[in-house]
Amino acid sequence: MKKDDTRGPLYYADYLQLDRLLDCQRMQSALRGRPAHDEMLFIIVHQTYELWFKQVLWELDAVRATFRGARVEEEALGQAVLRLGRIVEIQRVLIQQVDVLETMTPLDFLDFRDDLIPASGFQSVQFRLIENKLGMRRGDRLQINDAPYTSRFIPQDAARVEASETEPSLFDLIEDWLERTPFLHFGDFDFWREYRQAVDTMLAADRAAIRSHPTLTNEEKARQLEGVEATAARFADLFEPGAEEPADTPGRHFSKRALQAALLINLYRDEPILHLPFRLLALLSDIERNFTTWRQRHAQMAMRMIGTRIGTGGTSGHEYLDRAAERHRVFSDLSALASFYIPRSALPKLPAEVRSRMGFTLQSPR
Amino acid sequence: MKKDDTRGPLYYADYLQLDRLLDCQRMQSALRGRPAHDEMLFIIVHQTYELWFKQVLWELDAVRATFRGARVEEEALGQAVLRLGRIVEIQRVLIQQVDVLETMTPLDFLDFRDDLIPASGFQSVQFRLIENKLGMRRGDRLQINDAPYTSRFIPQDAARVEASETEPSLFDLIEDWLERTPFLHFGDFDFWREYRQAVDTMLAADRAAIRSHPTLTNEEKARQLEGVEATAARFADLFEPGAEEPADTPGRHFSKRALQAALLINLYRDEPILHLPFRLLALLSDIERNFTTWRQRHAQMAMRMIGTRIGTGGTSGHEYLDRAAERHRVFSDLSALASFYIPRSALPKLPAEVRSRMGFTLQSPR
Amino acid sequence: MKKDDTRGPLYYADYLQLDRLLDCQRMQSALRGRPAHDEMLFIIVHQTYELWFKQVLWELDAVRATFRGARVEEEALGQAVLRLGRIVEIQRVLIQQVDVLETMTPLDFLDFRDDLIPASGFQSVQFRLIENKLGMRRGDRLQINDAPYTSRFIPQDAARVEASETEPSLFDLIEDWLERTPFLHFGDFDFWREYRQAVDTMLAADRAAIRSHPTLTNEEKARQLEGVEATAARFADLFEPGAEEPADTPGRHFSKRALQAALLINLYRDEPILHLPFRLLALLSDIERNFTTWRQRHAQMAMRMIGTRIGTGGTSGHEYLDRAAERHRVFSDLSALASFYIPRSALPKLPAEVRSRMGFTLQSPR
Amino acid sequence: MKKDDTRGPLYYADYLQLDRLLDCQRMQSALRGRPAHDEMLFIIVHQTYELWFKQVLWELDAVRATFRGARVEEEALGQAVLRLGRIVEIQRVLIQQVDVLETMTPLDFLDFRDDLIPASGFQSVQFRLIENKLGMRRGDRLQINDAPYTSRFIPQDAARVEASETEPSLFDLIEDWLERTPFLHFGDFDFWREYRQAVDTMLAADRAAIRSHPTLTNEEKARQLEGVEATAARFADLFEPGAEEPADTPGRHFSKRALQAALLINLYRDEPILHLPFRLLALLSDIERNFTTWRQRHAQMAMRMIGTRIGTGGTSGHEYLDRAAERHRVFSDLSALASFYIPRSALPKLPAEVRSRMGFTLQSPR
Repeated sequence: MKKDDTRGPLYYADYLQLDRLLDCQRMQSALRGRPAHDEMLFIIVHQTYELWFKQVLWELDAVRATFRGARVEEEALGQAVLRLGRIVEIQRVLIQQVDVLETMTPLDFLDFRDDLIPASGFQSVQFRLIENKLGMRRGDRLQINDAPYTSRFIPQDAARVEASETEPSLFDLIEDWLERTPFLHFGDFDFWREYRQAVDTMLAADRAAIRSHPTLTNEEKARQLEGVEATAARFADLFEPGAEEPADTPGRHFSKRALQAALLINLYRDEPILHLPFRLLALLSDIERNFTTWRQRHAQMAMRMIGTRIGTGGTSGHEYLDRAAERHRVFSDLSALASFYIPRSALPKLPAEVRSRMGFTLQSPR
Repeated sequence: MKKDDTRGPLYYADYLQLDRLLDCQRMQSALRGRPAHDEMLFIIVHQTYELWFKQVLWELDAVRATFRGARVEEEALGQAVLRLGRIVEIQRVLIQQVDVLETMTPLDFLDFRDDLIPASGFQSVQFRLIENKLGMRRGDRLQINDAPYTSRFIPQDAARVEASETEPSLFDLIEDWLERTPFLHFGDFDFWREYRQAVDTMLAADRAAIRSHPTLTNEEKARQLEGVEATAARFADLFEPGAEEPADTPGRHFSKRALQAALLINLYRDEPILHLPFRLLALLSDIERNFTTWRQRHAQMAMRMIGTRIGTGGTSGHEYLDRAAERHRVFSDLSALASFYIPRSALPKLPAEVRSRMGFTLQSPR
Repeated sequence: MKKDDTRGPLYYADYLQLDRLLDCQRMQSALRGRPAHDEMLFIIVHQTYELWFKQVLWELDAVRATFRGARVEEEALGQAVLRLGRIVEIQRVLIQQVDVLETMTPLDFLDFRDDLIPASGFQSVQFRLIENKLGMRRGDRLQINDAPYTSRFIPQDAARVEASETEPSLFDLIEDWLERTPFLHFGDFDFWREYRQAVDTMLAADRAAIRSHPTLTNEEKARQLEGVEATAARFADLFEPGAEEPADTPGRHFSKRALQAALLINLYRDEPILHLPFRLLALLSDIERNFTTWRQRHAQMAMRMIGTRIGTGGTSGHEYLDRAAERHRVFSDLSALASFYIPRSALPKLPAEVRSRMGFTLQSPR
Repeated sequence: MKKDDTRGPLYYADYLQLDRLLDCQRMQSALRGRPAHDEMLFIIVHQTYELWFKQVLWELDAVRATFRGARVEEEALGQAVLRLGRIVEIQRVLIQQVDVLETMTPLDFLDFRDDLIPASGFQSVQFRLIENKLGMRRGDRLQINDAPYTSRFIPQDAARVEASETEPSLFDLIEDWLERTPFLHFGDFDFWREYRQAVDTMLAADRAAIRSHPTLTNEEKARQLEGVEATAARFADLFEPGAEEPADTPGRHFSKRALQAALLINLYRDEPILHLPFRLLALLSDIERNFTTWRQRHAQMAMRMIGTRIGTGGTSGHEYLDRAAERHRVFSDLSALASFYIPRSALPKLPAEVRSRMGFTLQSPR
């Protein structure tokens, strides 16, 4: 009755290929004649991770395809938002799974840990593909023991990971799309001059408030004024036509043009036409945050599992993960965008004629 | 460099059998020439479920083995508690995964839904094994269309599921273990007479309080007194030597002897020697609750996905799951045990001599 | 240095009124001279619930205000979506809090349970307001002991709850808004005739497939054909101009006009102009589902806490909550909307001229 | 009908003091005449945090009281475990609440952010009390702008926080209790010599395995051998009678005697008598990990909310929280304890006579 070439009725176990799927758990400790009960958990946790990574790649590839054309179909934007939203929900599961892995005590791990050497989670091809397709570049990565990050892979895997570095990443595609956004210029209305003026007014008010403050000490005033000047410098840089990429924080940075578009989308997100772009950018930021949280949770778990010892992969898992959580960022510009916000009340009002011309106002059909 | 019989260094992808694991996703919609993007998610979600089910069975089998002997090694109890605690954490992930599945909209599901007919989640062998190994009996199950629950399986799967019905279930083993607990009788000290007396005193006080209540109407008093009498009847039944199994609620019921032991363990859980048994019973209750929650979430999702239509398996998934959530219970006696509690202040004090003889007090080593 | 009328610098504790907030915990067990440690948890859990209820009402009122006008500002729709999304996140916390409450064991609860009689969670004014403002009507409620649901309140609270019954509920406002949606009619293009035709074609194909099925028994065919006819009847009713409200399921039902609009929004959700309305309807469904889950978790917890006894409020908390979870629904029409979906491939294609006239296509500004 | 001195029947709203509780929300933006909708959320989130902090303190104080005596009652240990477990569940809610706060967009925050200056979460007295009562010392804290951490409090709050520094912290009490553990010495059986020998054997095997490895390069071998020597050094230090407190990591460190006891408890956790101590130590580690996660999530949120600007409290919230997550640790010794584990198979077997003398084996009552 089983499904074969003549294709009888579909059977659940055949559909999901359970025969093979549930036969992929090979405990090294059992092969060595001293089965360790908890190795099964270790295998299953990592296999579910890999299945979810496949799904994340599936969605990432679809979203990248959407943004690949010169023109993103409006209809496709809604779909891209749903798919990025799905990645976020998958990440919630990935994070939750750390709690399951933590039910394995260090002592139980020791029962089979040595059997795994030198295999290591560093060797997950799919996770490297996710990083690269998001937009991580070789130079942004933490170096482990001075070896390239692909050195731990077998040649065909290394080749696959390296190939992904040359594809246009989600970061690249989003940057392009932002740069192409039609809302960067509003015809005659010089938005950025108005915005800059609003910023200047805001900063001047900040300085005055600090200087005339009744209870602050002079030292505190000085420190707060320094803060205002730092903000002013960041704004100046944003408006400056010059150097494209500030270099003070790790990870990637959008071109100013793209950054300005992202800023506009966030500032005027209540315009219906900008709601989907706004959601899209927010989700990219969520995805980055969740991978950071996941790495941090893993770092804590690695510490708990093997303490400060060297991991099966030959490095301190805890330290690597902790530092990667800090450094392996792609969309940090989006997470820090709030640096450039000004209060809504100070926001330049777009002339009605501009709003209508930009398609900001929808005409109800008649 | 790949791992083969001569066994080179272990490689992550070989260890996890990723070649096969990540090759088990066959989209029916693609086979039919119109690939539906979301079918991948549908497959991955169900495959991760099945991997977790394998892990749950792995733990369940280990715990059952622990309780199989005539005497449960004290050392094994701590392990059983850790393993049941692991099942609870896995269930948290199973429930979280429903949120991922819900990112698929009904319209996206319709793109490939018909391709799946007549496959259905009812055909998950592993989930039926979990139910049976927990202690569900054929007669306790919801009937679907008057057919036995195994009618949807291919013969070898049906045989496997049926075989599991004959194994001693966790319910059976726990019941045996409870009946064997040495704490049911305390030598000369007639605990149950004392307890019954405490119960009677408590009930009498309840009745008096209601009758003399200054503001309750007579009707309200009557209703509350009825409640007290219902409680009294339940207590009477517990102490009665007679019929072993009350039949007013669905699912399985412990023998009175086992029920009394469970009660004792909960009432005196602060005694160090009873802490592990107390945790064990609490976890069994957690596991049941989580499967109920999981079924309820699935019922909601089924409604959302196909409305009131018939599912791919030929029944209304929503209705089945909702009713199964209510009926497919095994350890409901533990969840309802609080019916028999009396306040700690009314609890019979165990004579010091009894406590020491029972091993309730530990002697510090010198 | 504390903030007073002359208003010095704002202080965290003054801002949050911590003096009062952290002084609202009065343990009844302590007042009675035998403080029960866990009563503090009981109070804090319920107080955090009430604070969150206040926030939910705050958002609900804002969303209702948005939909109150004859015309919903497009800008306001994005805001409404963010606010409903916030309610969903709050509900995740409410559900998570049940896990905290469950760390109180039944025995610990018994230490102060009698001190609380006859107070009860049924007396939460804010929760009744939420229900009423969502759209629950008096007649849809479960009756407790034949008394109106307001009978447990003091007069001023009863009055407040009753007053909320007369306000336009979110259900009413959404129904109005759906009925007003400009997309119900597409000028000359008779969408519903086309849709009906697509439905008929789909149903005919379903019937043919079943009849010619090679392996199904006649009985199974008959049962599956019954299912098709039930679907057909539901569709017929939707298209029928007649009776507005089907009565076979509990809770509220949209007018057919509103239901058709909701259906359209879901079917054409990829049109950018429909994305926000689509999200809005999905969130209403999420909110309902989460309250259902919350009630179900509470029902389980009530069972565990007091077994089958009568609660402090004089009813069986477990049973009430379980049945309320089933009956207290408002937006079930949205959750069951998938009943009316047809596959995208069978969906009538809207003429380009229609799409442009409806504002479905946005014109990029130049 | 309201409750007063003559004490009528208890009413839900009176019990929970809802009149006051729900009147503590004073929006600064409203006081200034331009109410910002989202300030309500900001207030409610922080108020629920403070309510939960009160509960955490309630449990912490109870647990500290348990450990205060010269002898911890065995019965009290089970209770302490339940209470620490409750703190863990509360922390899950605290972390979940960050998701709610993140539904506030930076632009919405800007609508009232300036109204809050200079109030700040740094001024939460209760959170500082939690830190101090756990065992954080003044010297372990991050310095903000060279001012003592209490400089932001009004005098009476500063005094309260400072007073808590002088109480015995949970860290102190646990350290004492560990040092007193009767299991550190096993009569004639010199456990630590046996353990040390097992460690030496294990390390020797590690060195041999690396040296004779067929595929590792010499460089890799050298690096891995270094790792082994580092482990050896850490073990040597543990067994050395000398200096009590290693200083290479931030935060507090247990005395060697306490550390040895913690190690023993973890190594022999399957002995029933050690199960509760094992759970206790695991929970302390969970609590620390959860506060770390909570701080990390807050750091991410601060970045998103205000970017790299200075927070209302005059410092960069993001940076402070990120570094505090790293440094504000108390029980990191427990999290890193795995450094000292050896595989169960290499663990010295305790002589039966020793096990029985230590109370490791329980005698079943007869």
